[in-house]
Amino acid sequence: VAARRLTGRRERRETGRFLAEGAPAVREALAAGAVVELFATADAQQRYPELTADAAQISPRDAAALSETVTPQGLIAVCRRESTSLDDVLAAGPRLLVVLVEPNDPGNVGTVIRTADAVGADGVVLAGGADPYNGKAVRASAGSLFHLPVVDAGGPESSGAPVAGASLLDRLASAGLRTLATTATGRQDLDELIDTGSLAEPTAWLFGSESHGLPPDVLATAADTVAIGMRGRAESFNLAVAAAICLYATARAQRAASTG
Amino acid sequence: VAARRLTGRRERRETGRFLAEGAPAVREALAAGAVVELFATADAQQRYPELTADAAQISPRDAAALSETVTPQGLIAVCRRESTSLDDVLAAGPRLLVVLVEPNDPGNVGTVIRTADAVGADGVVLAGGADPYNGKAVRASAGSLFHLPVVDAGGPESSGAPVAGASLLDRLASAGLRTLATTATGRQDLDELIDTGSLAEPTAWLFGSESHGLPPDVLATAADTVAIGMRGRAESFNLAVAAAICLYATARAQRAASTG
Repeated sequence: VAARRLTGRRERRETGRFLAEGAPAVREALAAGAVVELFATADAQQRYPELTADAAQISPRDAAALSETVTPQGLIAVCRRESTSLDDVLAAGPRLLVVLVEPNDPGNVGTVIRTADAVGADGVVLAGGADPYNGKAVRASAGSLFHLPVVDAGGPESSGAPVAGASLLDRLASAGLRTLATTATGRQDLDELIDTGSLAEPTAWLFGSESHGLPPDVLATAADTVAIGMRGRAESFNLAVAAAICLYATARAQRAASTG
Repeated sequence: VAARRLTGRRERRETGRFLAEGAPAVREALAAGAVVELFATADAQQRYPELTADAAQISPRDAAALSETVTPQGLIAVCRRESTSLDDVLAAGPRLLVVLVEPNDPGNVGTVIRTADAVGADGVVLAGGADPYNGKAVRASAGSLFHLPVVDAGGPESSGAPVAGASLLDRLASAGLRTLATTATGRQDLDELIDTGSLAEPTAWLFGSESHGLPPDVLATAADTVAIGMRGRAESFNLAVAAAICLYATARAQRAASTG
């Protein structure tokens, strides 16, 4: 019953716990030592004996009640949230961060976390918006939520004091990161930044919400604004796609600079 | 009632029609001349007078029944599928195509269509898997479904004769396209292909399903296999993210070659 309440955001925040569902996510959660309690159906215990040694058995019906998916896999872990602060991440001397300002879609948040992990970024910072510990976000992150620091930097819905865009940007800049804010009307074109090799600098990429983009104060305060040039007739890239294009190009430029 | 049946894949195939929901999608459908019938609630007619001049008014309840979203927008168009064939697309001398082989997730299919449009690719080819005319796919494509050719090249679930991987690859190769099959164990690394400038050639990128990747016959027959190097601890990129990284790099290389 307590676990079922973790499908709600408030309960997740208050308890510092969340649910990870399915074998891939549970495997990463166990490897990260983040599992507080593990539930498995008899079926799941048979299918994943290596994961379920310490699992409490539950009925398929209880598994379905805990699940946020249409086809529950019968394997659900209650996990501890890592409480990484922005200070911790900045103190480690990051070279590549991604900052999402009030993203709407938890699936996009999870996909950005997965992409940040895959390119070797140093962390993901969330300033308000969708909860990275939401079931959809956890699923979309495909285990990466347990691999790299994910920082809740505040925002209207956060438990902490709201962090104004400018203050967040100041802290990133003070840590030696060039803050690049993405917008369709950016002063710089991503292509040119790639050509000039300037992406090799320590960089924090900022992305706004799917519907409204970045707030004006963030655009005004960032070191630069960047557009990803559109060539066809689409109006914009999907948020997770835009982040992937920027992160891949930046990680590549940073590797090239460090080896060559 | 007839419109409501279009939430099913079989009905969509048999009638050659599908549903587009919400103002952005309906706007693109109208611009493309693809709308057969338009339904709007009184609310939606007030909010979007420029779109709903020819709309039949429906009740919010009927709108909800037609909708596949949690928060229906009260604006739904029955659209005609463009029947573009692979021959049509190949005859136009494409320089950049993306081929999805049995993708599972309609959201990913729609996002790939949106990305292909945004980078100026010449078309998206689907070989089996999720339906690009599914409600989630249409929504994720954000109107791009009406902007560039989307070809149903067969597959187990298609109405046409199944197109074996090899035969599809032969047709792409005969049209002068280098077929690049993505896989974690690819012989080439995407970074190196970018460095050597070889992506400027006319290219067809092939991506497999989220869970199983490309089938062995496709990997064996493609001109080359390509890995997108992973740097962190993630096992793979999301399908739509992988496609975005490859498509952006290729479109960029092709532009550089044509201008320089």
